[in-house]
Amino acid sequence: MKAVVIHAAGDLRVDDIKADKEQTLGPSDVRVRIGAGGICGSDLHYFRHGGFGMVRLKEPMILGHEIAGTVLAIGRDVVAVSPGQKVAVNPSLACGQCRFCRLGLHNHCLEMRFYGSAMRFPHVQGGFREVLTCTDEQVVPVPDHVSLTEAAFAEPLAVCLHAVNQAGSLLGKRVLVTGSGPIGVLTAMAARRAGAAEIVVTDVVDAPLAIARAVGADRTINVQAEPQSLDAFTPEKGQFDVMFEAAGSASTLLAGLQIVRPRGRLVLVGQGAEATLPMSLIVTKELELRGSFRFDDEFRTAVGFIADRLIDVRPLLTDVIPVDEAQRAFEQAADKSRSMKIQLAF
Amino acid sequence: MKAVVIHAAGDLRVDDIKADKEQTLGPSDVRVRIGAGGICGSDLHYFRHGGFGMVRLKEPMILGHEIAGTVLAIGRDVVAVSPGQKVAVNPSLACGQCRFCRLGLHNHCLEMRFYGSAMRFPHVQGGFREVLTCTDEQVVPVPDHVSLTEAAFAEPLAVCLHAVNQAGSLLGKRVLVTGSGPIGVLTAMAARRAGAAEIVVTDVVDAPLAIARAVGADRTINVQAEPQSLDAFTPEKGQFDVMFEAAGSASTLLAGLQIVRPRGRLVLVGQGAEATLPMSLIVTKELELRGSFRFDDEFRTAVGFIADRLIDVRPLLTDVIPVDEAQRAFEQAADKSRSMKIQLAF
Amino acid sequence: MKAVVIHAAGDLRVDDIKADKEQTLGPSDVRVRIGAGGICGSDLHYFRHGGFGMVRLKEPMILGHEIAGTVLAIGRDVVAVSPGQKVAVNPSLACGQCRFCRLGLHNHCLEMRFYGSAMRFPHVQGGFREVLTCTDEQVVPVPDHVSLTEAAFAEPLAVCLHAVNQAGSLLGKRVLVTGSGPIGVLTAMAARRAGAAEIVVTDVVDAPLAIARAVGADRTINVQAEPQSLDAFTPEKGQFDVMFEAAGSASTLLAGLQIVRPRGRLVLVGQGAEATLPMSLIVTKELELRGSFRFDDEFRTAVGFIADRLIDVRPLLTDVIPVDEAQRAFEQAADKSRSMKIQLAF
Amino acid sequence: MKAVVIHAAGDLRVDDIKADKEQTLGPSDVRVRIGAGGICGSDLHYFRHGGFGMVRLKEPMILGHEIAGTVLAIGRDVVAVSPGQKVAVNPSLACGQCRFCRLGLHNHCLEMRFYGSAMRFPHVQGGFREVLTCTDEQVVPVPDHVSLTEAAFAEPLAVCLHAVNQAGSLLGKRVLVTGSGPIGVLTAMAARRAGAAEIVVTDVVDAPLAIARAVGADRTINVQAEPQSLDAFTPEKGQFDVMFEAAGSASTLLAGLQIVRPRGRLVLVGQGAEATLPMSLIVTKELELRGSFRFDDEFRTAVGFIADRLIDVRPLLTDVIPVDEAQRAFEQAADKSRSMKIQLAF
Repeated sequence: MKAVVIHAAGDLRVDDIKADKEQTLGPSDVRVRIGAGGICGSDLHYFRHGGFGMVRLKEPMILGHEIAGTVLAIGRDVVAVSPGQKVAVNPSLACGQCRFCRLGLHNHCLEMRFYGSAMRFPHVQGGFREVLTCTDEQVVPVPDHVSLTEAAFAEPLAVCLHAVNQAGSLLGKRVLVTGSGPIGVLTAMAARRAGAAEIVVTDVVDAPLAIARAVGADRTINVQAEPQSLDAFTPEKGQFDVMFEAAGSASTLLAGLQIVRPRGRLVLVGQGAEATLPMSLIVTKELELRGSFRFDDEFRTAVGFIADRLIDVRPLLTDVIPVDEAQRAFEQAADKSRSMKIQLAF
Repeated sequence: MKAVVIHAAGDLRVDDIKADKEQTLGPSDVRVRIGAGGICGSDLHYFRHGGFGMVRLKEPMILGHEIAGTVLAIGRDVVAVSPGQKVAVNPSLACGQCRFCRLGLHNHCLEMRFYGSAMRFPHVQGGFREVLTCTDEQVVPVPDHVSLTEAAFAEPLAVCLHAVNQAGSLLGKRVLVTGSGPIGVLTAMAARRAGAAEIVVTDVVDAPLAIARAVGADRTINVQAEPQSLDAFTPEKGQFDVMFEAAGSASTLLAGLQIVRPRGRLVLVGQGAEATLPMSLIVTKELELRGSFRFDDEFRTAVGFIADRLIDVRPLLTDVIPVDEAQRAFEQAADKSRSMKIQLAF
Repeated sequence: MKAVVIHAAGDLRVDDIKADKEQTLGPSDVRVRIGAGGICGSDLHYFRHGGFGMVRLKEPMILGHEIAGTVLAIGRDVVAVSPGQKVAVNPSLACGQCRFCRLGLHNHCLEMRFYGSAMRFPHVQGGFREVLTCTDEQVVPVPDHVSLTEAAFAEPLAVCLHAVNQAGSLLGKRVLVTGSGPIGVLTAMAARRAGAAEIVVTDVVDAPLAIARAVGADRTINVQAEPQSLDAFTPEKGQFDVMFEAAGSASTLLAGLQIVRPRGRLVLVGQGAEATLPMSLIVTKELELRGSFRFDDEFRTAVGFIADRLIDVRPLLTDVIPVDEAQRAFEQAADKSRSMKIQLAF
Repeated sequence: MKAVVIHAAGDLRVDDIKADKEQTLGPSDVRVRIGAGGICGSDLHYFRHGGFGMVRLKEPMILGHEIAGTVLAIGRDVVAVSPGQKVAVNPSLACGQCRFCRLGLHNHCLEMRFYGSAMRFPHVQGGFREVLTCTDEQVVPVPDHVSLTEAAFAEPLAVCLHAVNQAGSLLGKRVLVTGSGPIGVLTAMAARRAGAAEIVVTDVVDAPLAIARAVGADRTINVQAEPQSLDAFTPEKGQFDVMFEAAGSASTLLAGLQIVRPRGRLVLVGQGAEATLPMSLIVTKELELRGSFRFDDEFRTAVGFIADRLIDVRPLLTDVIPVDEAQRAFEQAADKSRSMKIQLAF
């Protein structure tokens, strides 16, 4: 069967791999015919740079962790789903035994297996493949009226719901989201869902900001075109209650320290490099910087919100491209002025 | 009367200023005969550098904000204290009206008047003076069995209790305190008072670490002499639940990111300069960095803890030096290998 | 001018009182021409029973605290509003000086003055009057596109937003609201706004449940008609994460203890009498019962949500009745099968 | 070997049961020679009434869950302890798989097995026996300098640390503990350890109050002898920040509602029957009632605090009685005027 495999930076191939159906199905296993797979920023990092930070590709790896499909077969103990059912596939599989799993912090599992990630070696192979066999813990049923392209947004939405959960209550709050890619826009939507009163989204490109406005941002600012626009939020030591840094940019974070109010929170969702920060400002304003990494139960919540259209992800889908044209799909996904979210069809 | 006035970096004088008793006493005013005044790190910054960060001396200013004394006279509406009573003097006076006061966040008051601080201009004159007139909100009675030298620790202890309050519950937690000056040691004591199970204190000088051990630190590490000692805390993504950064050092903070566990908190108490931090580590470990600035109701708590000896500050007092020798007192206070806390006697 | 005055249980009159315009306008005062006034459950308690709990009417009192109008005149220091502007009027006025105001807990002010309340004596006269003079802290501007009938929902919505704020984050949570009167329905809407995934509303009358469904409840249950329906939520020690008790009913609260999950929260919004509760169930499930009383900054949030239609209160308005027919208005408001919210027009 | 078995209310026997050493030792099992076993209030309930609430004895059951001993043998995978080592034995064993275990809420495990408890059927046999075989998760090493009688306090101390963890930060707080039995006194000690500024303990018997004072309560009140003494705490809507209800008494809880301040917390530790509470008081003061049930990681913390004498439990031990005199031990334990904590020696 076909799978999208990254061999090295720039070397992306559609390989023919051994089909899962030749494997025996364990008692808790679920075999899924993948229908849609969204290309994520980390997939693009492997594609363009062969990794990010200290995570580097050491062997060929199937990419992909934003996936949805239809159940083909189930192991004998599986009760949650049945063949023919649409499912969103959770790409994370925690061990359930380690110190962090015991505390209920599964996203910090010491033995986490996350699809399409080179953090461990051997790498955990990903979900851009025609058929995938996972455990019953990893599949969440999706109602029939929801398309697989929508369902494949569950993973990035879960990331954003998790970020919102790190921010404390947003009900009635003023919120800044920096970065208007899929994570930034979905965070803005999640913040609105969580009751934010005012949401401002920034970026350096106009096209994604237009989508942010279309899905409910109260205001968008192109900080390259209008660098002074954020000054309106500096009075009284800062006007935003919460900032979500989804641009992965040190300068954006630095600017945020000026416009978030004393005791406000800055949630870091974007994977940036180093940032040089004035500690005295963090101290005197008693700011709180908090990282947000992946998700846990928010995956299930994300599927529910998508199914009930409590968050409507459809305006974010730019294009669906057949898996055979994976190279073209990745190139288009890398161009922020043309693409919000590109999905592969299998 | 005498007052300790900083005129410029290095130019500290004991000036003869107009006595407060020539002023009329307002209805809520309290006139205090100052007995003891502790020299703080920020006093030393004015003394050595004429300020810190963006706060610079622009006119002569009386230093001092760790002060205690005896009530001389009270205004007609004052009921909380009476003449002859010992009091600790809270150096902060919030406006009570601004956005942050309304939220109960008085340490972020937009019109805060804090003794011996050049943040505002004209500067707020400090408490190293024979007699001080303040409001009844600022005095907290101290029982007779407590000395004024102990009472003058209320302010730095309040700073540390406030820092502990930013850390969430410490009951049963593993705690790292970096920096073994008065703030570091008092933070370690406050962490113990708040139920920390294990407390490790670090510094680059041995003498203050010996005091940290004497007042209850489970372990101390001279990170200059034994740079590898912290490696014992790196397994499983980090072993400390909470870190208090009281050294004001970027490299110390950076090292902390490695040994604080996922979802742990790093409370910044020290006033450092810039720190260059790897954002991806904050994100993947979901660390929380939180500034802690001054204090609020913790001042009253600090006086209570000192009075009940729930925290015994006496081992921290290195020497009491007459105000006429202020220059010598400041020089000795600046030498960490010889001094933990130097106080002036008036 | 006309005012709706309760003289004793059952004795409601439209009295001609001395007009406010004969008073001098203080520097921070705002004179408002009242346009709409909603009849609240507590107004009905005075009307039918002369009070509730230990709060009893001891002198004639103007009723009303859900009010909105148009600014007639402003004192010389007022900058927040100008004549002609629509405003929602916050019926609470905290002292700003007491122990609880200092903590930022203004709804617990020891000297709270709340319109149309007999808690203090002399009673605080209410807002069902043609013209009202209040302070500039109490008026929140309302945009022109919002009607005064909508604006008069700000107060009950603020009560419900405050209740939601006592519940912790609702993002992705399963929520039960007991009682489908205005407070129950607005709480359901606020819970949805705050990100609840599933909302079940109960009552003993069908008509208000139909409105709850119309404004977004996922399911409604007439617990009188279908007493066994809640049993579906008992498995695994209870299925609801949060319950809002807005029926003021001891038996409803008791039933909730069975179907809220361990560590779940029960927020009490309704003013009930005594409830006999099995302490062992609260202990073994570690349930959390928390009262919610009035509101604080949520009033401003409520106006914002109404103005931006982030919460659309319009389906809740049953009828607007001229002040001269106040008696009829109160009688209709008391009939839950016919009325959700009745407002008076002035 | 000998075991203390309850057959029915009043029918306590020292039975000769089949020895554990005849069982095969599983790979993660630890066989412990029990040295000390504390008699708990729930043991006394089985002894006197055959159960409590809905928990009733349906078959003979070995009592006991406050136990410590010495390791006899270990399974082949056990690394945490070795033969000859002193250990405190955690009587709870969660399944690790259910909905609540996954959330990290192990004390709410749907399949919890807790020693000496009739909640499930067949009952889980307890620890008052000469030899006990448990899993390696259940044993916590105790240093040699700590006696087994001290180590056997780990369980009740864990209960109290867990209660303190439900109360939020106690640093600088005013705390009321109602009930001066072992749980009340250990809660007072845990509250002091967690930084409470003032601790008041009440009871209706003098002897245990004397012990409460001896271990650090600032004040004790015999509410039977001095029923008006709590009135001093009513001003300004209540003076206590937190109350721990450890008497299991409805009237005590009711009294607490008057003297806990608005937004204060009442943590219920005692297993009481029904309580009739005025809901309006909970609402208007926004009080928070929260149950506290058993413990989780606090067991490990308790062992650490006992070992480091951060909490010194020794003053609580009234007597150690040989297992052969179990009947006499239970009778003495039931007399609050003579006993704080009675332990059995094996």
